[in-house]
Amino acid sequence: MIPATMQALVKPTAAPGMEMREMPVPAIGATDVLVAVETASVCGTDLHIYHWDEWAQARIKPPYIPGHEFSGTVAAIGDLVTGVQVGDFVSAEMHVACGHCLQCRSGQAHVCQFVKILGVDADGAFADFVRIPASNIWKLDPRIPRDFGSLYDPFGNAVHTVLSGAIAGQTVAVTGCGPIGLFSIAVAKACGASHIIAIEPNSKRRKLAQQMGAHTLLDPSKDDVEARVLEVTAGNGVDVMLEMSGHPAAIRQGFRILRMGGRASLLGIPARPVELDLANAVIFKGATVHGINGRKMYETWFQMEALLRDSGIDLSPVITHRLPLAQFDQAMHLLETGEASKILLNVKRA
Amino acid sequence: MIPATMQALVKPTAAPGMEMREMPVPAIGATDVLVAVETASVCGTDLHIYHWDEWAQARIKPPYIPGHEFSGTVAAIGDLVTGVQVGDFVSAEMHVACGHCLQCRSGQAHVCQFVKILGVDADGAFADFVRIPASNIWKLDPRIPRDFGSLYDPFGNAVHTVLSGAIAGQTVAVTGCGPIGLFSIAVAKACGASHIIAIEPNSKRRKLAQQMGAHTLLDPSKDDVEARVLEVTAGNGVDVMLEMSGHPAAIRQGFRILRMGGRASLLGIPARPVELDLANAVIFKGATVHGINGRKMYETWFQMEALLRDSGIDLSPVITHRLPLAQFDQAMHLLETGEASKILLNVKRA
Amino acid sequence: MIPATMQALVKPTAAPGMEMREMPVPAIGATDVLVAVETASVCGTDLHIYHWDEWAQARIKPPYIPGHEFSGTVAAIGDLVTGVQVGDFVSAEMHVACGHCLQCRSGQAHVCQFVKILGVDADGAFADFVRIPASNIWKLDPRIPRDFGSLYDPFGNAVHTVLSGAIAGQTVAVTGCGPIGLFSIAVAKACGASHIIAIEPNSKRRKLAQQMGAHTLLDPSKDDVEARVLEVTAGNGVDVMLEMSGHPAAIRQGFRILRMGGRASLLGIPARPVELDLANAVIFKGATVHGINGRKMYETWFQMEALLRDSGIDLSPVITHRLPLAQFDQAMHLLETGEASKILLNVKRA
Amino acid sequence: MIPATMQALVKPTAAPGMEMREMPVPAIGATDVLVAVETASVCGTDLHIYHWDEWAQARIKPPYIPGHEFSGTVAAIGDLVTGVQVGDFVSAEMHVACGHCLQCRSGQAHVCQFVKILGVDADGAFADFVRIPASNIWKLDPRIPRDFGSLYDPFGNAVHTVLSGAIAGQTVAVTGCGPIGLFSIAVAKACGASHIIAIEPNSKRRKLAQQMGAHTLLDPSKDDVEARVLEVTAGNGVDVMLEMSGHPAAIRQGFRILRMGGRASLLGIPARPVELDLANAVIFKGATVHGINGRKMYETWFQMEALLRDSGIDLSPVITHRLPLAQFDQAMHLLETGEASKILLNVKRA
Repeated sequence: MIPATMQALVKPTAAPGMEMREMPVPAIGATDVLVAVETASVCGTDLHIYHWDEWAQARIKPPYIPGHEFSGTVAAIGDLVTGVQVGDFVSAEMHVACGHCLQCRSGQAHVCQFVKILGVDADGAFADFVRIPASNIWKLDPRIPRDFGSLYDPFGNAVHTVLSGAIAGQTVAVTGCGPIGLFSIAVAKACGASHIIAIEPNSKRRKLAQQMGAHTLLDPSKDDVEARVLEVTAGNGVDVMLEMSGHPAAIRQGFRILRMGGRASLLGIPARPVELDLANAVIFKGATVHGINGRKMYETWFQMEALLRDSGIDLSPVITHRLPLAQFDQAMHLLETGEASKILLNVKRA
Repeated sequence: MIPATMQALVKPTAAPGMEMREMPVPAIGATDVLVAVETASVCGTDLHIYHWDEWAQARIKPPYIPGHEFSGTVAAIGDLVTGVQVGDFVSAEMHVACGHCLQCRSGQAHVCQFVKILGVDADGAFADFVRIPASNIWKLDPRIPRDFGSLYDPFGNAVHTVLSGAIAGQTVAVTGCGPIGLFSIAVAKACGASHIIAIEPNSKRRKLAQQMGAHTLLDPSKDDVEARVLEVTAGNGVDVMLEMSGHPAAIRQGFRILRMGGRASLLGIPARPVELDLANAVIFKGATVHGINGRKMYETWFQMEALLRDSGIDLSPVITHRLPLAQFDQAMHLLETGEASKILLNVKRA
Repeated sequence: MIPATMQALVKPTAAPGMEMREMPVPAIGATDVLVAVETASVCGTDLHIYHWDEWAQARIKPPYIPGHEFSGTVAAIGDLVTGVQVGDFVSAEMHVACGHCLQCRSGQAHVCQFVKILGVDADGAFADFVRIPASNIWKLDPRIPRDFGSLYDPFGNAVHTVLSGAIAGQTVAVTGCGPIGLFSIAVAKACGASHIIAIEPNSKRRKLAQQMGAHTLLDPSKDDVEARVLEVTAGNGVDVMLEMSGHPAAIRQGFRILRMGGRASLLGIPARPVELDLANAVIFKGATVHGINGRKMYETWFQMEALLRDSGIDLSPVITHRLPLAQFDQAMHLLETGEASKILLNVKRA
Repeated sequence: MIPATMQALVKPTAAPGMEMREMPVPAIGATDVLVAVETASVCGTDLHIYHWDEWAQARIKPPYIPGHEFSGTVAAIGDLVTGVQVGDFVSAEMHVACGHCLQCRSGQAHVCQFVKILGVDADGAFADFVRIPASNIWKLDPRIPRDFGSLYDPFGNAVHTVLSGAIAGQTVAVTGCGPIGLFSIAVAKACGASHIIAIEPNSKRRKLAQQMGAHTLLDPSKDDVEARVLEVTAGNGVDVMLEMSGHPAAIRQGFRILRMGGRASLLGIPARPVELDLANAVIFKGATVHGINGRKMYETWFQMEALLRDSGIDLSPVITHRLPLAQFDQAMHLLETGEASKILLNVKRA
């Protein structure tokens, strides 16, 4: 029933671009699961790999199959696998932790010292089939819209960021409204944030931010962000700053609008070192800063499931485009122009 | 402008009952505020005082004026008062902490060793005027419905209880749906609780629980509570148990339906010692139990304000009756029969 | 090299007593480790099993090999085992978590819903060899005295209990000075507790409590415990209460001496339900209560290793007796008379 | 009994230097206390004020009396003061919080938006007498060496920094061994830190670090700090980094040696913005960063008292010099050359 070969989107060489190829279906080990991919989605990371930028050149070893956001159906399981069955509709945590280091053995597997990311460090999900360690499989609740299945990875980033500190009754600024920023707005709103400020120069994204529940929309290229934030926070600044852009200016501004004693959770990755006024931004302010990496294994996944099932969070507005996998060039183009937010790639429809 | 005497509801002697009397308007000290009461509301504690039960006999020293839930307008301020002005629309934290003990000086004033509660240990708000230390005054946000002003005390109990641990994405059981239990349902829902189970024998209260946002309503006198809870929690039991009844059977059942590693926050006051299977209810379960007393000063008040202003919480369904202060006998009757949930007493309408 | 049979202390039937028998050496699976036991130690649980009390009758399925505190040398490893080698000197977490439930997947494996305890629910370490899942093995640091190797299980209970909340600069009461209570005193002291009060009727144990670092020793059968605690805590009561006895009177007294807003961590297991004045003990007090079960996997183990290696904690005073495994009858006798604290059973010396 | 004038060390004009002058004894208000200063100590901040550097020019308004570390005896109290008496031996929290802002009313007075620091923004303790609001007075425990009385301010910085996260069983790096760094070493050790690494180029300070309890001493100008840290932390990096220098290179190195998922608490104040590799230092690392300002009011003070009284912490090695107040020029010289660590200035000996 499982074919010998499959269609896959491959990063073939150490150069820009990707291409569709026929590849062998991966063989699975005793504790692995083989998943027939139904939908994959495209992340900014995939765009870096596509363009073969500095980061990609240092990290990626072609040829390999990218793709780390997906949903699909279990096609085969290894001999020692329990708790997952052929036919289960699943996604997966693509950070494969080593299981042996200090972090893995003390509840911090999301910052495993020896993590391998499927789709980055090893073959991923832009293919008909993907091999996943059974312990990383997440069974998708049928009460949650099937379309959201490939979005658990970035939605989990948002949940991890928002819930890394208190959120109920808090004023929140989200700096940068790509998909994870947009998801964060919805999560913060569902979890009782009192006033959510979206700070984003792209007007399409600001509109999406409003749809996701932001109360105040600010364009940092035009608005006096600091004055407006003080206006809507009784002069205090925000209780919580969620940094989703990785842009140095946004990071610095984010810390300026954070109130004394506030919390900043940083997820956006700056391309290079950032000059930061640590004295005023963090130290005198008595701020708490959280670096956010991946999703907690698997606390974040349980939180995601609960929020998507019961809190009325709708991810649909963020899904701006759907394309067949083979139209990856167009997808990359839509992303880099800021035209698209999240693009779903149809691999195979069950 | 301030008269020499006022109408007040007085607990005159060490016996059942209360009565309306003409009393002197309280004189204020340099750091006090005098408030012209507009609305007061009736708490279960007032019913104990009215009936002169065992607890009341041990604690209350008549003659005095009860009433600890109120809103009103500042009529006068002491010479050293700053930050409060005549005409401000306010409520107040009626737990007056000593300011000197370990608890007061280390962020735990809500469990001050020498607390005095206005309306219990000293004159309260069932009167035209009430004297409050300026530091206990809370200015009411005009964007919040004026009617909710007297409800901050019990609403704060609910907020303190719900937010004493994680709530976003959690399954929650509320045992006992008096006003504080009902408020807790609304708060849990607004803060991202995934599934809220209300457990309450009184059908009127169960209906209110539904209005406040409970997903599952259980009647402990008829339903198989434990089986139903397992059904709606994937067999785990609830993540969070909020005990609002003080009834021994409800407390024991609440612990039985709590999942391994869950959180129980106890606010309902049992009339006497409770036999509890500590081994299975708490120890093997690795449970965390919080005793909840009053409201955090003033973290809870900021949370209340934010939630009431921005999260769409509506307290109106819980306000079942409005009466003039002089009809206190009827109010007490409505409460003890379970006819009423929260009763507002109109003292003076601005 | 590994023999076919071994000597083991067996619980042969559903009746009091144990006996030495020749038993087959356990076969190991692909992810298991076989350990040649060097030292085992005796826990109160073993005494319950020996005497065949009510708890034992409900839980234990003879015939089987008890024993869950041990150290030894790895004799063989399964085909898929990595990170453990033949010859490693090890102990193990004997709570074998299922790995699949909510608790296991969210950092709470110590309260796994489907836990099996080796030495209780399956064969344990009172034998020449014991089979352990590789993931439960803990390699012992050679800088820590070899004798402490079998004590990680109860020492870990103590570390888990003490560090379940703030301890630095806190006043602490330990109610019950069996081995875990004694270990708790040493841990609290090493972690900056300011004043440690040991409450224990047995004078031998009180002397050990003093050796482990307690500042104040109280005999609840003679001393006015409540008055003395107030004396040494500036009238506040203790910040932290560590319940190690499981005795109802000790539990109730422990809560009475706990300060307003204090923390109680409960490890001692009451034999039956306990009548507790929840209103005053927990609710009005604003107390936080932690039920403590086992050791956190494996945060507690890292903490143990660090404390035993670097903080000068000496467990020796608690090791009051050493006997060959075959003298288990004498060991049980020494324990039940309160003569012994912790007894090491020599199984095989490397 | 209280004279009309006093000797005081004054910052007379907007220029380098200070001078002794006769000044009026401050008049006290109804809620103030007048303290006869016995000992004051010199902080790095005083050196900035003395030299009239950029920071001082922006913040300080001469003429005024500096000095914010002191101990002394209460000479007079205002009419409304309770809980403090003439003759009490005291120190004080010199950050005077406004009492009205969000932070002050929610347990974060140490980051009050409108704080005034006595000795910086208003007259301080380099004088025979100093006026302090009664609520800021801290009575000194007679069981603690009298000499430590003026050191509560910097010792409290250390306690606040060390205890801003878990410390028991943790490996710790302290970057910068001025007085607060040295105090932090002692606090970390007393609270169960497992291995403490002091990183400091000045050899006198490294020797003091050893006396205070550091296990490993590193000279960043010569040692391969990163390699050595990995050696003593099993290849993980440190669990906790306490930044006490404010030097950009030390801050960057401190983040490099922090383990994945570790905690960094920053107290040292960089003179200008710092270029930091946020991606690797904080975000991918999943680090938690705390900005530390002052002391928690007054949790930190209770912790200080407990640690100084009961944990055997000895601050004496850090007190390298004692001088009369009038020899302030020599004191400043000793500090700026790195000759001195903490200098006590005798104002008046009771």
